[in-house]
Amino acid sequence: MTVRVAVAGASGYAGGEALRLLLGHPDVEIGALTAGGNAGSALGEHQPHLLPLADRVLAETTPEVLKDHDVVFLALPHGHSAAIAAQLPDDVLVIDCGADHRLNDPTAWDRWYGGEHAGAWPYGLPELPGGRDALVGARRIAVPGCYPTVSSLALAPALAAGLIDPEVVVVAVSGTSGAGKALKPHLLGSEVMGSLSVYGVGGAHRHTPEIAQNLGRAAGRPIAVSFTPVLAPLPRGILATCSAQLTGGGDEVRAAYAKAYEHEPFVHLLPEGRWPTTAAVLGSNAVQLQVTVDPDLDRLIAVGAVDNLTKGTAGAAVQSMNIALGLPETTGLSTVGVAP
Amino acid sequence: MTVRVAVAGASGYAGGEALRLLLGHPDVEIGALTAGGNAGSALGEHQPHLLPLADRVLAETTPEVLKDHDVVFLALPHGHSAAIAAQLPDDVLVIDCGADHRLNDPTAWDRWYGGEHAGAWPYGLPELPGGRDALVGARRIAVPGCYPTVSSLALAPALAAGLIDPEVVVVAVSGTSGAGKALKPHLLGSEVMGSLSVYGVGGAHRHTPEIAQNLGRAAGRPIAVSFTPVLAPLPRGILATCSAQLTGGGDEVRAAYAKAYEHEPFVHLLPEGRWPTTAAVLGSNAVQLQVTVDPDLDRLIAVGAVDNLTKGTAGAAVQSMNIALGLPETTGLSTVGVAP
Amino acid sequence: MTVRVAVAGASGYAGGEALRLLLGHPDVEIGALTAGGNAGSALGEHQPHLLPLADRVLAETTPEVLKDHDVVFLALPHGHSAAIAAQLPDDVLVIDCGADHRLNDPTAWDRWYGGEHAGAWPYGLPELPGGRDALVGARRIAVPGCYPTVSSLALAPALAAGLIDPEVVVVAVSGTSGAGKALKPHLLGSEVMGSLSVYGVGGAHRHTPEIAQNLGRAAGRPIAVSFTPVLAPLPRGILATCSAQLTGGGDEVRAAYAKAYEHEPFVHLLPEGRWPTTAAVLGSNAVQLQVTVDPDLDRLIAVGAVDNLTKGTAGAAVQSMNIALGLPETTGLSTVGVAP
Amino acid sequence: MTVRVAVAGASGYAGGEALRLLLGHPDVEIGALTAGGNAGSALGEHQPHLLPLADRVLAETTPEVLKDHDVVFLALPHGHSAAIAAQLPDDVLVIDCGADHRLNDPTAWDRWYGGEHAGAWPYGLPELPGGRDALVGARRIAVPGCYPTVSSLALAPALAAGLIDPEVVVVAVSGTSGAGKALKPHLLGSEVMGSLSVYGVGGAHRHTPEIAQNLGRAAGRPIAVSFTPVLAPLPRGILATCSAQLTGGGDEVRAAYAKAYEHEPFVHLLPEGRWPTTAAVLGSNAVQLQVTVDPDLDRLIAVGAVDNLTKGTAGAAVQSMNIALGLPETTGLSTVGVAP
Repeated sequence: MTVRVAVAGASGYAGGEALRLLLGHPDVEIGALTAGGNAGSALGEHQPHLLPLADRVLAETTPEVLKDHDVVFLALPHGHSAAIAAQLPDDVLVIDCGADHRLNDPTAWDRWYGGEHAGAWPYGLPELPGGRDALVGARRIAVPGCYPTVSSLALAPALAAGLIDPEVVVVAVSGTSGAGKALKPHLLGSEVMGSLSVYGVGGAHRHTPEIAQNLGRAAGRPIAVSFTPVLAPLPRGILATCSAQLTGGGDEVRAAYAKAYEHEPFVHLLPEGRWPTTAAVLGSNAVQLQVTVDPDLDRLIAVGAVDNLTKGTAGAAVQSMNIALGLPETTGLSTVGVAP
Repeated sequence: MTVRVAVAGASGYAGGEALRLLLGHPDVEIGALTAGGNAGSALGEHQPHLLPLADRVLAETTPEVLKDHDVVFLALPHGHSAAIAAQLPDDVLVIDCGADHRLNDPTAWDRWYGGEHAGAWPYGLPELPGGRDALVGARRIAVPGCYPTVSSLALAPALAAGLIDPEVVVVAVSGTSGAGKALKPHLLGSEVMGSLSVYGVGGAHRHTPEIAQNLGRAAGRPIAVSFTPVLAPLPRGILATCSAQLTGGGDEVRAAYAKAYEHEPFVHLLPEGRWPTTAAVLGSNAVQLQVTVDPDLDRLIAVGAVDNLTKGTAGAAVQSMNIALGLPETTGLSTVGVAP
Repeated sequence: MTVRVAVAGASGYAGGEALRLLLGHPDVEIGALTAGGNAGSALGEHQPHLLPLADRVLAETTPEVLKDHDVVFLALPHGHSAAIAAQLPDDVLVIDCGADHRLNDPTAWDRWYGGEHAGAWPYGLPELPGGRDALVGARRIAVPGCYPTVSSLALAPALAAGLIDPEVVVVAVSGTSGAGKALKPHLLGSEVMGSLSVYGVGGAHRHTPEIAQNLGRAAGRPIAVSFTPVLAPLPRGILATCSAQLTGGGDEVRAAYAKAYEHEPFVHLLPEGRWPTTAAVLGSNAVQLQVTVDPDLDRLIAVGAVDNLTKGTAGAAVQSMNIALGLPETTGLSTVGVAP
Repeated sequence: MTVRVAVAGASGYAGGEALRLLLGHPDVEIGALTAGGNAGSALGEHQPHLLPLADRVLAETTPEVLKDHDVVFLALPHGHSAAIAAQLPDDVLVIDCGADHRLNDPTAWDRWYGGEHAGAWPYGLPELPGGRDALVGARRIAVPGCYPTVSSLALAPALAAGLIDPEVVVVAVSGTSGAGKALKPHLLGSEVMGSLSVYGVGGAHRHTPEIAQNLGRAAGRPIAVSFTPVLAPLPRGILATCSAQLTGGGDEVRAAYAKAYEHEPFVHLLPEGRWPTTAAVLGSNAVQLQVTVDPDLDRLIAVGAVDNLTKGTAGAAVQSMNIALGLPETTGLSTVGVAP
């Protein structure tokens, strides 16, 4: 079986990463590549690392160009997916790397993104409780945000097992590619290198309600999430430090994490004493996790690392595609990082 | 008045930064420079940025070499200062950039550093409540650790004003120079660049009891500190994100911070809407702070940035020297960073 | 004597660096700060490292705002200085950090920059033969380009002494701040970090004729310059590797360099066996040089390092101001870098 | 057909990259993993990115452990391969990632490496004239050095076609992983980040005679190579700028390069106007090249980019293995980089 896949937003970072992975997927044929302002130019001008596709010319992002494919990846700015998706046939698998269809709560959408909500789609994080079932046979999938992916996986086992209080603190440090190719002064290399900064502090970051939604689902009750993102000088990678008060002793913590992920191909609880690094997951679909207890505070500390563009975006999209189409879940994906 | 200053450990990062600042201090004459394994070699081989001192030859670190100075900076590995200091005359101002004399509690010393405690000295963080008075006329000063400096300044006003609960969460991201010039695999450039990592998780980092000591002094009661340090790919700078539950509404928060630091020459509460970056304080003695309230959680979030080698180490040493000797506190120090 | 200085283009990198240096200059009072698109906003929004000036509001760049000063620094895009300068009084010292007045040859101007040439001004590189004399008492000064500064100083002694052939090869690696704050995709942090690239290859870079002009002046005959700039992932610093065939043996090389710079406060020929690094000159006005001979090829290799924003731009501007006004040449400038 | 491969030196950078590629090679089964000082520990402690092999324990590097494999990769310090290889059966394919068997000239070996020469092996750069034939059926292969790979490919077509003079200038900028995991002060992250430096200047770098050997073979006469390596702050990647005087006009240059590499799967001459970047080849086996002529100097400028660990070391090793064993040359290798 060969699946024909179109990528809308092929000149951006999410689209480029999707293409990098799809080029290595044995069951995929890459179809239309589209863009907004870059339509008409060769992909090689924007993605020089995708040599086999360098001469492909970008089409305009329209339903007509996209519709005759088995799968359409939408890697568009937030708010642009719903209108396109509505014009694609129901039997086309549409995978939205943007935020449009992640949140269940229209009020939350309006508060953090603004405007009318396009409705939630099956959520592409199969490692959450019940997550995989929702994707089997799906034809519309919302790819999780990068911060929610690692934060949710780092805390869900403890919440699902009732081991921690429903107030969690997440401070996640990220490379710059999560912000996309937008031309903003604070994203210039001269500003980023040699500097650390924060943004979206105090619950203002749009990923806050998405983390809360995931954790609430895992816990079966509302979870209060204090989320602070930090920008650091590297292109890729997120390291999330997550903590919460234990409800009891910490004896069951490690077993709960080990059990939660024992059959997961991409989520790895490291041996005791080793801690995740983003370099170890660069370009891979793996999540590396470690968990410990602060003995003075009876507080759980869970740390996770992902590549924000791979497992944090495009890898999750491919993984979800595999599940939806009944392909082996790991096809075209790797747990081997590119390091050093 | 000219003060003659010796620097022990002149080939390391703390010693080098001390010399960089002392070269710009109008009242200082630089005396003996000493080292351990690097004794006998020229400073220029180790600190090529200190051009005016490039031909100075490093002596062995001995009391004899150091004693005939007005001030001695000790920038030695932890545990090496006490023995040297004990052999220096009482009227020599000894400023220890190491940890030997920071902690009041011998039990804490033994647990986090090991061995017998050498006793606490006046603590070189004048911006803490009562901190400045303890330094006037002092002849022994313990320079704070880099993480405790920024974390304590970010949380002390809220604790002193009773605005937050006595449980705080600090996640601080640091450049690599805080780890010194030790030849360890994880500090190699190839490992550091492109990666984020954690260490000392779960209360294991030695700066945890020092932060708790400072915050306890500010609050007047014990403070539980959850501290997680993150290593990021930049040479200098610490960005600390600190949070805690508010005891009441957040209305008094900003005023408390503004009042705490209104007369401080080096601690700057930024205007609302601007957030600290480490680039803005590179090479300067400034601390940039911002504080906000998460309205959904009634949680205070305070963020601070320092240069770990300047205000976080050698700048604090010079500032403390100035106070101890009755010089204007800001002499030889700057609030202007080197950016971009 | 206090000199009142205005800075036009205060929100850019060259303007910011000029202000950083001027804040430490004991004879300077900082007057008007102007900008183009950023006029009306506070300097602190653009240059958060310049804390003492954070609340200063940027004025529009007009002759009226600038004229009532002793000195005006122009840190404007290329092509914008001439019109402003023409409307400033003759007795105001105008220092142009842009390229408008560097080239003597109108044809070269037209080829590399385009349009009519505004005419050459005294050139702010006092370390070139005859360079200092041209600046004494000057009221119009053209600050050299960053690449020409280090490349010219690295090769001039050998050319002036007739030790090398008139064909030189310069490959210079630079940080990103030399490109300014322009919002271009290839300058985004995500693109820069982890990558090396070339630009302006084959004589296309605008600094090529400026290097040739300087070297021709030193040699007393035309010099053919092969110049290739490389962009590397760091904010500041240029390392230039320069080579040429020796005309004779290499015995006189070191002596020629030592003699050329023996009285220069900012140009340092390193001891044999040590090589320049850009970290050693970060934020300083120093140039570090080393020179050797490839014994198999009878070829001279000279390597120089500068901070492109300091000695490569704003430091040269301050140094030239000092000379022009009769102040000690090193006032407000340092040979001490900020490292690591 | 499944090939059983052992890797000696599995805890280093070259060995780790070999394993990363071999994990993706469909015809390879990974056998023994050995190390020197790290023998006895788990691979996951040293190579956390190689998740599928994390629990494998490293054996001592001995002939006994290595001999029962179809292929042995030696990723050992220079000078250690010959003794091991001499004790491995003749029909085992031994691929040496070190320098021991690269140079034909014992005098050159003694001068640049020291000691007795172990003799040259077939050279693993199939894209050089005649290079592929030498590898078919070989059972001993010397993997080229990283700098020689990109420098030779960038200049060979012009030399083979007689288009340039026999004196070439190569300045190549490299990331830090080429220096390996050696614990040297100048390789610490704090020293590397934010800095550019040179080393091995004036013909002192060991890759100089290897480049000359390759270019001499391509040209059919001796070539004088001026080679200067520059260290830049990134983990991986080499960008080489190479230049030489044209013997005639430059009209034939592009055609010569296009023809030389038209059938090569890994060497890509970019379309005119695009220039290589190291980010575009990160983790891939591709070489990106561009060539132009400086019209004022009649000088050829060729620029190439490779990942020093992939095409520059371990990718070349896998490519050579494929050729030697009669597998399709591109098996297990990619031309798709990991960017941004």
